[in-house]
Amino acid sequence: MPNTYHRLEKHFQKLAQIEHALTFLQWDHMVMMPPGGNHSRAKAIAELTAVHHGELSSDETGELLHQAKDKASDPVQKRSIIEMERSYMQAVCLPSALVKAKSLAATKCEHGWRSQRMENDWDSFLKNFKEVVNLCRQEAQARFDCSLEKVATPYDALLDLYCTGDKSDFIGTIFAELKNNLPTMVRKIEEKQSNHVEIQFPKKFDSENQKNLCIELMHCLGFDFNNGRLDVSSHPFSTGCRGDHRITTRFKNNDFFDSLLATAHESGHAAYEAGLPSQWDDLPIGQARNLCIHESQSLLFEKLIFLTTPFFDYFTQKIHSHLPSTTQLNSTQLRQAATKVKPSFIRIEADEATYPLHVVLRFEIEKDLINSTLEPQHIPEVWDLKMQQYLGLSTAGDYKNGCLQDMHWTDGTFGYFPSYTMGAINSAQIFQTIRSSFPNWADDFRKGKIIFLLEWLKGKIWSKGSSMDSQEILLQATGEKTNPEYLLQHLRNRYLLDEY
Amino acid sequence: MPNTYHRLEKHFQKLAQIEHALTFLQWDHMVMMPPGGNHSRAKAIAELTAVHHGELSSDETGELLHQAKDKASDPVQKRSIIEMERSYMQAVCLPSALVKAKSLAATKCEHGWRSQRMENDWDSFLKNFKEVVNLCRQEAQARFDCSLEKVATPYDALLDLYCTGDKSDFIGTIFAELKNNLPTMVRKIEEKQSNHVEIQFPKKFDSENQKNLCIELMHCLGFDFNNGRLDVSSHPFSTGCRGDHRITTRFKNNDFFDSLLATAHESGHAAYEAGLPSQWDDLPIGQARNLCIHESQSLLFEKLIFLTTPFFDYFTQKIHSHLPSTTQLNSTQLRQAATKVKPSFIRIEADEATYPLHVVLRFEIEKDLINSTLEPQHIPEVWDLKMQQYLGLSTAGDYKNGCLQDMHWTDGTFGYFPSYTMGAINSAQIFQTIRSSFPNWADDFRKGKIIFLLEWLKGKIWSKGSSMDSQEILLQATGEKTNPEYLLQHLRNRYLLDEY
Repeated sequence: MPNTYHRLEKHFQKLAQIEHALTFLQWDHMVMMPPGGNHSRAKAIAELTAVHHGELSSDETGELLHQAKDKASDPVQKRSIIEMERSYMQAVCLPSALVKAKSLAATKCEHGWRSQRMENDWDSFLKNFKEVVNLCRQEAQARFDCSLEKVATPYDALLDLYCTGDKSDFIGTIFAELKNNLPTMVRKIEEKQSNHVEIQFPKKFDSENQKNLCIELMHCLGFDFNNGRLDVSSHPFSTGCRGDHRITTRFKNNDFFDSLLATAHESGHAAYEAGLPSQWDDLPIGQARNLCIHESQSLLFEKLIFLTTPFFDYFTQKIHSHLPSTTQLNSTQLRQAATKVKPSFIRIEADEATYPLHVVLRFEIEKDLINSTLEPQHIPEVWDLKMQQYLGLSTAGDYKNGCLQDMHWTDGTFGYFPSYTMGAINSAQIFQTIRSSFPNWADDFRKGKIIFLLEWLKGKIWSKGSSMDSQEILLQATGEKTNPEYLLQHLRNRYLLDEY
Repeated sequence: MPNTYHRLEKHFQKLAQIEHALTFLQWDHMVMMPPGGNHSRAKAIAELTAVHHGELSSDETGELLHQAKDKASDPVQKRSIIEMERSYMQAVCLPSALVKAKSLAATKCEHGWRSQRMENDWDSFLKNFKEVVNLCRQEAQARFDCSLEKVATPYDALLDLYCTGDKSDFIGTIFAELKNNLPTMVRKIEEKQSNHVEIQFPKKFDSENQKNLCIELMHCLGFDFNNGRLDVSSHPFSTGCRGDHRITTRFKNNDFFDSLLATAHESGHAAYEAGLPSQWDDLPIGQARNLCIHESQSLLFEKLIFLTTPFFDYFTQKIHSHLPSTTQLNSTQLRQAATKVKPSFIRIEADEATYPLHVVLRFEIEKDLINSTLEPQHIPEVWDLKMQQYLGLSTAGDYKNGCLQDMHWTDGTFGYFPSYTMGAINSAQIFQTIRSSFPNWADDFRKGKIIFLLEWLKGKIWSKGSSMDSQEILLQATGEKTNPEYLLQHLRNRYLLDEY
């Protein structure tokens, strides 16, 4: 008879098969499904989600975990059980009435938001949004009450879903550092870039040519097309499973960098997933650690490998060859177009120097919102104040380009935003470590060779799965916990010192 | 508290969601998945299949069925329960050891067959195949023992999986009629066609142009792209669900009829599925009746609508416009190329006049094989004898083009073949009824208008789902049960009398 731990493994491996189905049904939904399939697909996803939730939160899971915890002595098994318990607790700790109420309120709020944003209609939005916040506060409290390691605030309990292991105090200290330094640096960069010539692309870019260029980039970044695909969707994303990593991009006919940068970004996510430890496939311990690590890999590929001068110089010949109308611009000019820094209202369109300030703003607001020290109706004034302070822009009365721009809060996702910037810092810190470890990195990059970097990442980050906490991963890979100085240093090096 | 029947409905509707997942995971497997995904996908499909089988064959299903049967008085509910019970019995009646053994033997035989066919190696094939036949006989006996309505032979129990309701005696009588008439007719058609000029297509056809032409054809045949897709796979097929009907085709660069005919064929399957009664979605009573009806719809679209002179004349302009190199051939010449009749060895390449003879041969052999009146080692001689008798061709010693050509038996699928020809007869019978009911059919076809035909099919065939037996469907739609004279008459009309 198999021992308790192995029964637990089998149980979670079975759950992973339902997750596989959900993964590809959702990919299909975003990429392939004709509109008429919506109703049937929604029914199937709801049913499979319910089956999965039922199995995960079952008494059987709880009982097996209880027994296995007592008996485990092997450190890997112990760790594996902790990660299983994390999934289990996340599934059981919310009353199903709350899950349902939140889902309904979020759907209603998201549906209204689509037109309310267009119409700059904060008042109508607020009516729906108050209920979302109310239910998210209840969710945070419930997760707070049943969290495995005691956390400091209800917001921390939500944060743990995305930034597992990184607490809000820790993140707050890091973000304060960015807030204190970035506004000044951004102004300096703007001043420095003011003598760049504005680049106008000479003509429209065909989607087919852009796609071929994206495929070239993926090859350069080590993507294996025997184990994955590139497709098109309205918002780029990555998903998949062992041996089948799927990323998407989109094509704007006047800006080929949009598709290229998205492709580099999603290739980073896919590389991390492909490099996860195969011996723990289908188990929580074998999954990606958290979004702060995930985003560090995507940003490393997008901002640090691709936009780094030596690699970009190498890749320029491919841009010229696939998009012949760009040949009148050299590598420096093309790269200038892709590294323009300018404060703007919309987070998702922001450059790497101003993006963290958008995130700090959201982090500060959502933390207070969930911890009940800020009420939803006061968001616009706080938003305007912080935008002025951090980016020198006012959103007074302009909800559309202010607090109504994102849909994360609308659909009840709080605690997600910090991972973008924690990821950016982690990526700079990792890249600095790699450059120190491989003094010839730039020579290799200039030849398009990044295999040494991929191997380092696989050994130090990807293969760890969830066998360590995120700060342990950073520590063993870079010698330090997440340190904002690396991101600041990267921005200084790139934008003020023209180092790479 | 919901009554027993409604609990039963909920139970089957839940099962349908797992079927939805399996449907699209399999579509993805055939159409989208990179090779590296095989292992993960196989695990997920196996697990979901097991979950589905476990739920369907559970004591709960049996108990609910038992209770509901006693109480049901509403005729639709009674019928619905019969179809549920059919699914249930098919799931419970095989010992799981047999299912597993058959799956292993079939996989082994199919794997060997791939090279053995190439190498014309009957002896090696036979070693594996004997075990497949042995296990299929056991399966047939088990299904025979637990069949809902008593059937005459073990073969009938397998037949019932594909030709639900049509017994082997009935099919045998029908096929005898074809066997007695077709060989002579084929010789007459060959003689008549001997004065046709052999058509050589002037150049290669681009896949993109072929695809656009296929899409045009789908529009003409009423396919709604808001509720479906066309893709490419190595073997054309159709699948999907309410609102999301997916068909595939393939492109041969020297023969655009291959993709067009496959597209018309799969469009027929998709039209039937789209026309099934939505009030019974997710219930067995709402599913397609059986393959004999399904194939009648695909062949109606492929052979009867598309290749009928008035429609083909209409469509020729579209062929000319998408494939400009064909403009030197007029409609008559193009149609001659697509309606050539000639006895040949390979069933899947056969024309509509000789195809039924291939099927009769297989039916006669597989019936005897499953009923244990023929042993596997005697197949080649029987095959050769019948090929000579029906098609005037000898396969003595040529296993590759003889009994090793198909994979149906290899992977343990017996009872499937008859549906191809029962479908062909049904399609001719249905088409004759429609032509009699709509005297202006040819005028409408000549303008590309077939909406009257689609509405008739929806009313008489599609909307019936599985609420009637197949012969009841034929009877209320055409006034007769399946009658082979309609197929013979169609072939005479088209090939000897040049009527359409």
